[in-house]
Amino acid sequence: MPPLRIAIAGLGTVGSATLRLLKENADVVAARAGKPVTVTAVSAKDKAKCRKSDLEGIRLVDDPRELAALKDIDVVVELIGGAEGIAREVCEKALQNGKHVVTANKALLATHGLALAQLAEKNGKRLIFEAAVAGGIPIVKTMREGLAGNKVRAIQGILNGTCNYILTRMFEAKLDFSSALKEAQDKGYAEADPSMDIDGFDTAHKLTLLAALAFGTMPDLASVSVGGLRRLMPIDLQFAAELDCRIKLLGVARLTEQGLEQRVGPCLVPLASPLAKIDDVLNAVLVQGDAVGELTLSGRGAGGGPTSSAVVADIIDLARAGNGLPFGVPAEQLRPLPVAPAEARVSGWYIRLQVTDKPGVVADVSAILRDEKISIESMLQHGRSRTDSVSVIITTHAIGEAAMRRAIQKIAKLDSVQEEPCWLRIENT
Amino acid sequence: MPPLRIAIAGLGTVGSATLRLLKENADVVAARAGKPVTVTAVSAKDKAKCRKSDLEGIRLVDDPRELAALKDIDVVVELIGGAEGIAREVCEKALQNGKHVVTANKALLATHGLALAQLAEKNGKRLIFEAAVAGGIPIVKTMREGLAGNKVRAIQGILNGTCNYILTRMFEAKLDFSSALKEAQDKGYAEADPSMDIDGFDTAHKLTLLAALAFGTMPDLASVSVGGLRRLMPIDLQFAAELDCRIKLLGVARLTEQGLEQRVGPCLVPLASPLAKIDDVLNAVLVQGDAVGELTLSGRGAGGGPTSSAVVADIIDLARAGNGLPFGVPAEQLRPLPVAPAEARVSGWYIRLQVTDKPGVVADVSAILRDEKISIESMLQHGRSRTDSVSVIITTHAIGEAAMRRAIQKIAKLDSVQEEPCWLRIENT
Repeated sequence: MPPLRIAIAGLGTVGSATLRLLKENADVVAARAGKPVTVTAVSAKDKAKCRKSDLEGIRLVDDPRELAALKDIDVVVELIGGAEGIAREVCEKALQNGKHVVTANKALLATHGLALAQLAEKNGKRLIFEAAVAGGIPIVKTMREGLAGNKVRAIQGILNGTCNYILTRMFEAKLDFSSALKEAQDKGYAEADPSMDIDGFDTAHKLTLLAALAFGTMPDLASVSVGGLRRLMPIDLQFAAELDCRIKLLGVARLTEQGLEQRVGPCLVPLASPLAKIDDVLNAVLVQGDAVGELTLSGRGAGGGPTSSAVVADIIDLARAGNGLPFGVPAEQLRPLPVAPAEARVSGWYIRLQVTDKPGVVADVSAILRDEKISIESMLQHGRSRTDSVSVIITTHAIGEAAMRRAIQKIAKLDSVQEEPCWLRIENT
Repeated sequence: MPPLRIAIAGLGTVGSATLRLLKENADVVAARAGKPVTVTAVSAKDKAKCRKSDLEGIRLVDDPRELAALKDIDVVVELIGGAEGIAREVCEKALQNGKHVVTANKALLATHGLALAQLAEKNGKRLIFEAAVAGGIPIVKTMREGLAGNKVRAIQGILNGTCNYILTRMFEAKLDFSSALKEAQDKGYAEADPSMDIDGFDTAHKLTLLAALAFGTMPDLASVSVGGLRRLMPIDLQFAAELDCRIKLLGVARLTEQGLEQRVGPCLVPLASPLAKIDDVLNAVLVQGDAVGELTLSGRGAGGGPTSSAVVADIIDLARAGNGLPFGVPAEQLRPLPVAPAEARVSGWYIRLQVTDKPGVVADVSAILRDEKISIESMLQHGRSRTDSVSVIITTHAIGEAAMRRAIQKIAKLDSVQEEPCWLRIENT
């Protein structure tokens, strides 16, 4: 099978992560794409950002517009950014020259999405942009395909990790806005000029793309009512908490009887909403559809790893023209895997014992655990009941299931243990 | 464009909801499918479940196996259920006769998934099953396509709404297991024979499908270690809470150095995990990928609406062979929508005022709000500071933005109001 040949315009954080992911996961990518995916050429303003080894065998050009004209390229991946200028030229020329375009450029699509979609159709090529909204969260595919049977009622999104980080820090550490922003900048979450993020424009760009997919309309940036974070004080976040709410910068799109409402701004979100619990740099989107009800996707909305995950999914989609295989790869490529005994997996454990309330029980149990080299993390006992029976709860540090099972069997045989112990794994992510 | 002609085998809750959704959303379905989707024939054990009007113009056959042989059918939607017997025959015959198959049948796929995938490929037809796992949550598409660039490390899922409901009630209402189960049965969440759900087998079926997609292996039900809920007591859920955990019935699949670990059982889940907050009948899946990091999808995992949402998405996928259009429908079908003024949208509001701490301020503010017909929901004032300035927080009942804006302008002009008021929408889902 001839490979899918791609060119990457822009080797910043996302571009170099994409290059790395295509190389490191070349095996699964080829299996799922049905053919090898090779990076043929790249352009970079700052070549230093890439590991030399990642660029081996790849043509490096200075002007990204050259990539759109290369004969031996099937797909141009545009990771330059910006609504106008070079990024726009690269995408337009690539489509005109019969290349598919994968882009992470929300500003470009929010501004020229309709014209670019028309250009793609006219040339019989695809324009896809999973990475333009919410980084690694596959919300574009979900809106375009996963919920295709629904009439969407509303979308609410936490679409900017920088803002969500600032709000989280203003709440948890009671920082004022400027200090939280400074912290975000120091951590590399916010840019030197943070206005695109904190004034809500980045969220607005993403919102228009989701609204277009949800409501079958063209991206309409000019109609979004946009507000940002600058006026918030830490006390607002504390008061919100007293009201059982969190403050989040939301992008909201909703089809009303009067038309399409699109707005961006800080809102109080009741704790009952899944969005209230999305903290730090995480993103989340809540969609309400007439059939599906309420659906929430959450994950990392920015950074090289998550964004390259979205870019590579788009590339594989192009290769497959929609991956129709039941289990993602051809059946003959499905390989049996050895069965890992769950018993071998170490984890912390929870043990509940129903015991006779008399001295020495805990000592007996502790001795059994010690003999199996199981270390106790906490032990608690619930107040004496009217009977002489009490519950004793023990949590342990990480240990394999085999040792736990042996210990439980011994514990169950103690005279003072009145019923079969209940023991559960503590499942950390 | 000739229509995509489908047959639905089984008109229970999901089948009749699918019929209804295809009819009610025929416009968006046709736009996204690129052609009309028509239901040509159905089979039903119990015809009474369907509205007569929904069956108009549709052939009704008694034996679902007949559907697989019809000449004027492109797709068979199998909604009968069960790992063997009629459901299996229908799917096999449909593929052999050159029809695509859409199914919600996790038991069938967990048991015979590899053979059916091979049969589909041999006949050049597709076998898709979004509805088989987690109802309306598009987790199959996400695993198969959205995360296709990732090596998945682990999957943790709350995949059975009945169990999650029982656990939620055991925790919140301190019910014992039998009472919670009885309540679930009374509400129609659990079947008369609930063992498939509460003993973990339903979760195991779904887990094997996710594991197959994640790890490129065949569904391997026999290797899943399965446990259920019967031994849990309400006190376990209370103790878990004291340990900052919830108890959830998890399906977990993880690639270890020894091979593939697949297990189902009740676990303590730390509150920091997104899964700890998934209550009632909701489902959720947390995926860890090497590029994407941690991704969580949550929503309704059962019921006619959500499950038919998944079935219809699969049907549209078949029609499109992967929907490659940038905004889901052709660009010429993107229609401008009227712009709804966000200002017109009523909601509750949060107002923070920085005021001089002297009598009469609250009366002045209240009068302004009353004049604009804004009803106060709560008012709170934070303890006097060393200066004479205090914060007053007001929340209001639902009111439009225009009235709020007028009120805020008047309030800002009060002598006792020291700085520009901060006012935010309260965003309910």
